[in-house]
Amino acid sequence: MPRLWNETIETHRDAVRQAVLDAAANLVAGHGIAGVTMSAIAQGAGIGRATLYKYFPDVESILLAWHERQVQAHLSELLKIREQTVGAREQLGAVLHAYAFMSHAGHVDAEVARLHHSRHAGQAQQHLLDFLAELIHEGSAAGVFRADVAADELAAFCFHALGAAAGLTSPEAVLRLVTVTLNALEQPA
Amino acid sequence: MPRLWNETIETHRDAVRQAVLDAAANLVAGHGIAGVTMSAIAQGAGIGRATLYKYFPDVESILLAWHERQVQAHLSELLKIREQTVGAREQLGAVLHAYAFMSHAGHVDAEVARLHHSRHAGQAQQHLLDFLAELIHEGSAAGVFRADVAADELAAFCFHALGAAAGLTSPEAVLRLVTVTLNALEQPA
Repeated sequence: MPRLWNETIETHRDAVRQAVLDAAANLVAGHGIAGVTMSAIAQGAGIGRATLYKYFPDVESILLAWHERQVQAHLSELLKIREQTVGAREQLGAVLHAYAFMSHAGHVDAEVARLHHSRHAGQAQQHLLDFLAELIHEGSAAGVFRADVAADELAAFCFHALGAAAGLTSPEAVLRLVTVTLNALEQPA
Repeated sequence: MPRLWNETIETHRDAVRQAVLDAAANLVAGHGIAGVTMSAIAQGAGIGRATLYKYFPDVESILLAWHERQVQAHLSELLKIREQTVGAREQLGAVLHAYAFMSHAGHVDAEVARLHHSRHAGQAQQHLLDFLAELIHEGSAAGVFRADVAADELAAFCFHALGAAAGLTSPEAVLRLVTVTLNALEQPA
């Protein structure tokens, strides 16, 4: 009987959650991470400070949740791109290309991403790394990529190298970055 | 006449400055960047909050100064390493090797480094990038490294790629990361 009511509550809670994440992202974009407070986030989301604490214990957890949402959205995009491409090299090329432009467009993403210790990557980021490792592993098995370094290490290398895209000023430079990164995956002479 | 007195004041001011940077670094190491306050830093440095504001306007500027100090120390090390090595490939290899292990050891460094927008890299970080670009440029001129991508773009690529070292768990993995990064600088087939 209370099914509809529960759904309504769930929808409301999700809307509040999304508003909180949006408010936190806006504050970080405007002022940087240091100094972002729970009060400012509550105000930005249009809720009371006490209500905010029912959703998240601290600023860190909000930024982590926001980052998870971003990476999850990126990952969905990248999975689609992979499905539209054939061949190990072409697939990884298309995926790294798309990811480099995501990194190029999202400075704040990168900022928050690196805020979290590399050793404690969020779940979505770990999925992204696993996805890249899978593509690289397929390519290594097919003799397209080097096999002397483990696929997960090469995935982490690609992920970090493409972070340089955030500081590049032209799309051409982003393309060159993707090429250089892919060259590193080739069997060394 | 007031020379000695001025020197004493300068020495004192520098000691306070260093204590503030150390206190900020300890707080970030313990709790992460979000939530670090001027009050906590002042307490950690053993000075009053009002005194702290005579040195730095906000947390962001303290973290930036701390990061500058870290990168400057790293850069001095890397310059020494370069002088002890002969040959463009060997020099860059030795420098990237040393930098990768600095990145591997200093998680917090990396965290703060990335806090600052890539577009607004500190002065010391820009010097580090210029130094890497100079080494790569010499290597390209000598036909050792690829010349189809500008040296400053390749320097940014190396800098970011080696950031992956912070998340690696073994020294062997760090060495493989350096090798893969260097492979990317070779003339593509």
